[in-house]
Amino acid sequence: MTDELEQRALITIFGGTGDLANRKLYPSLFHLYKKGSLGENFAVIGTARREWSDDFFRDKVKASLKDIEDHEELADAFSSHFYYQSHDVTNQESYVKLKTLSDELDEKYDLKGNRLFYLAMAPNFFGMIASRIKSEGFVDTEGFHRLIIEKPFGHDLKSAEELNNSLRQAFNEDEIYRIDHYLGKEMIQNISVIRFANSIIESLWNNRYIDNIQVTLSEVLGVEDRGKYYDESGALRDMVQNHILQIVSLLAMEPPIKLTTEEIRHEKVRALRSLRVYEGKEVHQNFIRGQYGEGEVDGKELKGYRQEENVDPHSNTETFVAAKLMIDNFRWTGVPFYIRTGKRLADKATQIAIHFKNVPLNLFGQQQSLGGNVLVIHIQPNEGITLHLNVKEPGQGMVTMPVNLDYVHSSPDGMNTPEAYEKLILDCLRGDATYFSHWDEVSLSWRFIDQIAAVWNTTKDHFPNYKSGSMGPKEADDLVQRDGFYWFPVNE
Amino acid sequence: MTDELEQRALITIFGGTGDLANRKLYPSLFHLYKKGSLGENFAVIGTARREWSDDFFRDKVKASLKDIEDHEELADAFSSHFYYQSHDVTNQESYVKLKTLSDELDEKYDLKGNRLFYLAMAPNFFGMIASRIKSEGFVDTEGFHRLIIEKPFGHDLKSAEELNNSLRQAFNEDEIYRIDHYLGKEMIQNISVIRFANSIIESLWNNRYIDNIQVTLSEVLGVEDRGKYYDESGALRDMVQNHILQIVSLLAMEPPIKLTTEEIRHEKVRALRSLRVYEGKEVHQNFIRGQYGEGEVDGKELKGYRQEENVDPHSNTETFVAAKLMIDNFRWTGVPFYIRTGKRLADKATQIAIHFKNVPLNLFGQQQSLGGNVLVIHIQPNEGITLHLNVKEPGQGMVTMPVNLDYVHSSPDGMNTPEAYEKLILDCLRGDATYFSHWDEVSLSWRFIDQIAAVWNTTKDHFPNYKSGSMGPKEADDLVQRDGFYWFPVNE
Repeated sequence: MTDELEQRALITIFGGTGDLANRKLYPSLFHLYKKGSLGENFAVIGTARREWSDDFFRDKVKASLKDIEDHEELADAFSSHFYYQSHDVTNQESYVKLKTLSDELDEKYDLKGNRLFYLAMAPNFFGMIASRIKSEGFVDTEGFHRLIIEKPFGHDLKSAEELNNSLRQAFNEDEIYRIDHYLGKEMIQNISVIRFANSIIESLWNNRYIDNIQVTLSEVLGVEDRGKYYDESGALRDMVQNHILQIVSLLAMEPPIKLTTEEIRHEKVRALRSLRVYEGKEVHQNFIRGQYGEGEVDGKELKGYRQEENVDPHSNTETFVAAKLMIDNFRWTGVPFYIRTGKRLADKATQIAIHFKNVPLNLFGQQQSLGGNVLVIHIQPNEGITLHLNVKEPGQGMVTMPVNLDYVHSSPDGMNTPEAYEKLILDCLRGDATYFSHWDEVSLSWRFIDQIAAVWNTTKDHFPNYKSGSMGPKEADDLVQRDGFYWFPVNE
Repeated sequence: MTDELEQRALITIFGGTGDLANRKLYPSLFHLYKKGSLGENFAVIGTARREWSDDFFRDKVKASLKDIEDHEELADAFSSHFYYQSHDVTNQESYVKLKTLSDELDEKYDLKGNRLFYLAMAPNFFGMIASRIKSEGFVDTEGFHRLIIEKPFGHDLKSAEELNNSLRQAFNEDEIYRIDHYLGKEMIQNISVIRFANSIIESLWNNRYIDNIQVTLSEVLGVEDRGKYYDESGALRDMVQNHILQIVSLLAMEPPIKLTTEEIRHEKVRALRSLRVYEGKEVHQNFIRGQYGEGEVDGKELKGYRQEENVDPHSNTETFVAAKLMIDNFRWTGVPFYIRTGKRLADKATQIAIHFKNVPLNLFGQQQSLGGNVLVIHIQPNEGITLHLNVKEPGQGMVTMPVNLDYVHSSPDGMNTPEAYEKLILDCLRGDATYFSHWDEVSLSWRFIDQIAAVWNTTKDHFPNYKSGSMGPKEADDLVQRDGFYWFPVNE
């Protein structure tokens, strides 16, 4: 890992004309350029099937930069580092041309052989690309060679293993950066600071003081134009296997020996290994699935999932998952980790709510119910933490009232909440894999998720079972209520 | 203790023409009247030496009500309940007249013999008044009889006992309401709610998690026109014996069985009994005294204490006290309670700062010093609580930064922070003595304070030893620094 300010590398983006590249990667690289993390010693090759000229590509890149007006000159200088190479991933000649351009740029920009490959495309060809990267000698240079890939990383453990093996032809595990863009979010990275930089929080971070922990990733949108992909994936694979299990492992892990990539991963893997594995009936008891039906939001009629484009009209795919996870170790035995995620829910929010056990005795009279203390970590759209406490109601007598102690650190211009991609790309350039998914985590997650999927596959659920604009099926509420808890409202 | 909304009583105020009555008592009674806590069944007799008519008295009462403009009619109705009786406390006939008026008003307003006596005057005549109240039959009526007295309650244990015995001629202990107006403050009363209604706070409320606790009562003003009284009293008697030891006992007490007056007092007394008693040299090591010298604040030259009016030019009276108190019980062994109070300090503030122990290991690198968590309870001029935590600095890397989670519950119009007197008078009318000082507390406090005063009396200090506008003498800083701590800044 380097602490140098200016990174030096050739960045080759497969899928350079695509949506991800345009919406996320180019703006993120520009931010890094503006900040000086990228200086003069970098070049970007965009590749895709289409035949584009460098100039046309550069115009596209500039068009992708939202804040270009203020920085016209800077954007010109920035985009001059961009090159386009039309590329057919199945055609060997394409790789030869790409290799030639790569070597030229390496020399031109003095890149010391540092190469970052970004697979910003559908995963079908990942294996083929990796194999060519190896066989055509892309990674024979002196510098570092790193690969960034986007989800999905497989469909189950078996396919993930196959994909991983194909990538491993060209890259070692420590050269593979699997993006989980939730891990790039400011407040996800803040979890470790909140836990380990505050004695009062770490002191309370166990089953003696915590009642239950809730992780909610709720979306308002439906599947939109992702019907084809989504119908084969579902919420369990799309959200739980990666984002939610990553968040749970950051919440549950033991304090690492050091805050290094390896030590943090070690503890996350240990947490994942402590996850209670459900079998048979236990799956139905602890994992609730849902699929949205029609609904009305703000007077607008919304289609049910089965009526969406490219979705099987009899689809049994879940668009909602709620679950009760148990972590069987000394710290967490007895503390449910409730998770839920879904599309077409009432509110858009990612948040973590840590519910502390209530006081052993309510001294304030039976007529006053005393809410337990809750620490909420807001991931999005708000960023920050809220501590829910009880204080005295002003005036006569000893009447309690709930209050919130807030810290929200996003500022109106969004400048202090850097885009997750920007941070992750810089981390990769610096060789810091802390906020990427390691194969050990990916494989453990799939192993856990496969158990659930296997049981779900044997039965059809009564879908649709929740209305668009609700907070999911009734069974999700029952899941927490049968333990005497309640879902903490989002955005509070 | 009655839960009835409307209180029924004859309130006799000795010192009815005085400053306290005008600035605090009449406005407080008016607030209670506006709120309906006082209805039609009440009457107030003001007594003092001067010869005033009822009408003149009522005009004075109305003049004392700040917010009268909005409530002219209400103020007229309110003040019609006020009667004046010129009174010589040493003259028996005076008492006969007062008794006659009392009985008349009792009948006129149907007061059921409920009588509240308020001694809003210098303590010299307290004994004489109490004795006459008894001998002239004021307390022979059917209803309740209660006495409210202001500080000072004695000058040391011996004089306090004498005073108490004289009051006990007419009143039982449970009829004597000793005002400590700090106990009427909203946030002082909030201490018990903050502690006992929040599991996360009560869980941390002991020597495993707390490093030290600091109570600061700092004043900007000097002695003003109180030189004569103050020079015989000093900060130890004027502030530490009552207000500070009361606050310390509320902070240190064990959770009471119930939140009743008796159970809370029982625990406060236990806490006071656990106070480590200092002898000889220990007094000088743990109690620091100071006296203000000249100074300049905002370009204004300020006199030293010895130059103040009615102050002995060679006075050895302390205008500042800082101390390290130790509470030798299971909960608090090893946790210093640092206290400080003084006049002519840099800032006006009453606040409690609870410093939690730091994390066992700083994972964030040696170059980053990690501030420990601090919970600040703001008593005045701000009211509320602030929790000082560490979070991640937005951006790349794992850099910590301190943040405050705030809850300040005073609103701009001050309506939700009722005057301490208003609450205390209503508490007394309702028979709730929770926020008054019991004799057991007063006597224990004097016993503790007398030990300090006795040692201090044997030596003269090098006064003045702090400048007006500073935060006290250097020795006060040394007191905490030698333990590795620092005074938490006020108003932060």
